[in-house]
Amino acid sequence: MTQDRLILLNLKNYSQSVGDAGLELARTVDQVADETGANLVIAVPTPDIHRISSEVRLPIFAQHVDPIIPGASTGFILPEAVQKAGAVGTLINHAEHQLKVSTINATIKRVQELSMRTVVCANNPRTSLALAMLGPDAVAVEPPELIGGDISVSTAKPEIITDTVEAIREHSPGVQVLCGAGVKNGADVKKAVELGSDGVLLASGVVKHEDPRAVLLDLISGL
Amino acid sequence: MTQDRLILLNLKNYSQSVGDAGLELARTVDQVADETGANLVIAVPTPDIHRISSEVRLPIFAQHVDPIIPGASTGFILPEAVQKAGAVGTLINHAEHQLKVSTINATIKRVQELSMRTVVCANNPRTSLALAMLGPDAVAVEPPELIGGDISVSTAKPEIITDTVEAIREHSPGVQVLCGAGVKNGADVKKAVELGSDGVLLASGVVKHEDPRAVLLDLISGL
Amino acid sequence: MTQDRLILLNLKNYSQSVGDAGLELARTVDQVADETGANLVIAVPTPDIHRISSEVRLPIFAQHVDPIIPGASTGFILPEAVQKAGAVGTLINHAEHQLKVSTINATIKRVQELSMRTVVCANNPRTSLALAMLGPDAVAVEPPELIGGDISVSTAKPEIITDTVEAIREHSPGVQVLCGAGVKNGADVKKAVELGSDGVLLASGVVKHEDPRAVLLDLISGL
Amino acid sequence: MTQDRLILLNLKNYSQSVGDAGLELARTVDQVADETGANLVIAVPTPDIHRISSEVRLPIFAQHVDPIIPGASTGFILPEAVQKAGAVGTLINHAEHQLKVSTINATIKRVQELSMRTVVCANNPRTSLALAMLGPDAVAVEPPELIGGDISVSTAKPEIITDTVEAIREHSPGVQVLCGAGVKNGADVKKAVELGSDGVLLASGVVKHEDPRAVLLDLISGL
Repeated sequence: MTQDRLILLNLKNYSQSVGDAGLELARTVDQVADETGANLVIAVPTPDIHRISSEVRLPIFAQHVDPIIPGASTGFILPEAVQKAGAVGTLINHAEHQLKVSTINATIKRVQELSMRTVVCANNPRTSLALAMLGPDAVAVEPPELIGGDISVSTAKPEIITDTVEAIREHSPGVQVLCGAGVKNGADVKKAVELGSDGVLLASGVVKHEDPRAVLLDLISGL
Repeated sequence: MTQDRLILLNLKNYSQSVGDAGLELARTVDQVADETGANLVIAVPTPDIHRISSEVRLPIFAQHVDPIIPGASTGFILPEAVQKAGAVGTLINHAEHQLKVSTINATIKRVQELSMRTVVCANNPRTSLALAMLGPDAVAVEPPELIGGDISVSTAKPEIITDTVEAIREHSPGVQVLCGAGVKNGADVKKAVELGSDGVLLASGVVKHEDPRAVLLDLISGL
Repeated sequence: MTQDRLILLNLKNYSQSVGDAGLELARTVDQVADETGANLVIAVPTPDIHRISSEVRLPIFAQHVDPIIPGASTGFILPEAVQKAGAVGTLINHAEHQLKVSTINATIKRVQELSMRTVVCANNPRTSLALAMLGPDAVAVEPPELIGGDISVSTAKPEIITDTVEAIREHSPGVQVLCGAGVKNGADVKKAVELGSDGVLLASGVVKHEDPRAVLLDLISGL
Repeated sequence: MTQDRLILLNLKNYSQSVGDAGLELARTVDQVADETGANLVIAVPTPDIHRISSEVRLPIFAQHVDPIIPGASTGFILPEAVQKAGAVGTLINHAEHQLKVSTINATIKRVQELSMRTVVCANNPRTSLALAMLGPDAVAVEPPELIGGDISVSTAKPEIITDTVEAIREHSPGVQVLCGAGVKNGADVKKAVELGSDGVLLASGVVKHEDPRAVLLDLISGL
């Protein structure tokens, strides 16, 4: 297993992901990371960042931040606030939370000023390449029609991964490529890695499973 | 002083409002509430809700929530998540974070299902009346051109308050009326109350002041 | 038939609604209005306003305008521009194009400054009442789950109409109440009128029908 | 003068740009294009597309379209509708009308299916490069702080142009590069071309000038 290959677990806002349940799930992921040495990251609901980051060692991401500086911006998510709460990075432009391109660019810049990590999501190889040119740490390509479904992107649409990897390797080689949508087990991860991706982004396959620990161990076996 | 009259302090995202600084400010407000018995509420940055609510006794509001149920909604703010983190209410439709009317209506309904309190913001008497018909606990009228400024709405545009109070008393009498924008001292609060409002919403006048405790004591003297 | 009762036909962006096809459809509606004396209005695609208004006599509405004044606002829809192109009114906040409440309020005000008519759409009795308080000429209540469907709101959810009519009659009696969603024939219109509405808003039932003239004549029979 | 070099005049929504005034302005531009053979394009308000395209020969652009197919999309701008009204291309993502990246990508694709031309706007070299990867006909880089101002981008920030040109030539050489913001005269255009751009995008410098014909002739002298 290569240390750099990443499993990024997005907790979203499932009932299993918030409050005490979210904390327990985060502890499970933390323990698995500890036991296996796998490179796991979790993106948690904003109100839970401080509580979870206080209790686990694995890196915590925000699910979204706004490209704002401290000031009068009621209800928006200040990068400094999530950082002080313990986040070391953030998802940007998730399929469920899409942004204007100037907002994505400004968010990457603001977050990088704070030395936080950035994973930008995109819906196909072409938008993935476009967003890779903005210089995030990683792009995660996820065909929206497969998100939350039963068939992994690596099985259903392998060319999405290979096209994205090829384009980004050519034009913006410093940017890592993750893939996601429908990823459920070690075989899905293995195939994603064979197709050239640097890791996977997933959510429901772990969060909604009755035995998250078992799923995580299986996923890691595919790295 | 009537217990029901409210001072709602919106911390926004000032550098004084997040992380350790925000916690210290919240403790100051808490102490003043404790000493005076005044009805104080603070609306805190989302990532700080859990930490602050764990350390103070005064009621904590979110600055914004989305009208969503638990599920796949990456980066949005789930009402249950802020409630489990300790919030007992939320601002809705702040001038800096305006929403569609069906979103406001759905948010009020979702938040009230959780028995949380709702304060909806509006920019003039007409929109205040419209939003009062949606049945929130309170409407806070704030002329946007005075927000963050030096002259209180109660001095600069008293008719904004009286028109809003009159319209809402006639058509939706169960809804409280707060006012805000430029509120800085006890005289501003006193005038706002004399004009018929049930309290004030303010931010920079306290948050950016070098002695928040002194300002709060002065504000409370006007109730 | 009462002259004031209105059938507002929203052409949306169906292929039958744009270019030559839209013009032909508009001519059909115009001819029916002429023959029957019925109070018909059509809301046409923005690029077709000038062409259609030059060729027909019936009142033309825009489907949306932005609350802007002349200036630098690339790609937005200036009320003066649709007025100069021949529109005499506009839909605002259609279910397919929802707006912030301050935007709705500003749009009503801007459009009324130009002496144009305003029909604001809403999704239920509560939001209809709220928006009626902003003083448009009419509110059109349309349960979104019935839009484009086969069962008329007047049959499926008559209480939506009666609750809306009752609330608006009590609090804002100068505002007309239209209803829409699933309206297809004269019986649907008749029932809508009996339940207290001042007319109907409809689209696909006419636009996508193979014989729009026949449908219109049937609809008018229900007024 | 190279035929391919383009002056794209965005009429925006100025009072000089709509109704009869807009038509007269369009005729002036048309006449200048005719006399000089210069490659001029105008982007006109949506309600004026049909009227202007019926009266002039020069290519007409929309200022914005939505990436929708014919159907139920009240108030949005259907690409087929602007095409049938006479537009041969469209601006996308103007600084005054910014879009999500997946929306930009979908708009380019939809508009190219109709064989219409696409000019995507961006605020700096980095976002210009990102959007060039989506394959539009041209990218127009405009630093927002200079839009509508008195100093041309080619004078105030020449590196914006050279950086954009260099990056796009390297990674997406089929995409033309326009520049804009503050462009007012032939010297500005000349410098923009010397810095490598394929033309300019401008608005107020012509539209708000008392003698648009004279300005246009001067601008063309710089090509």
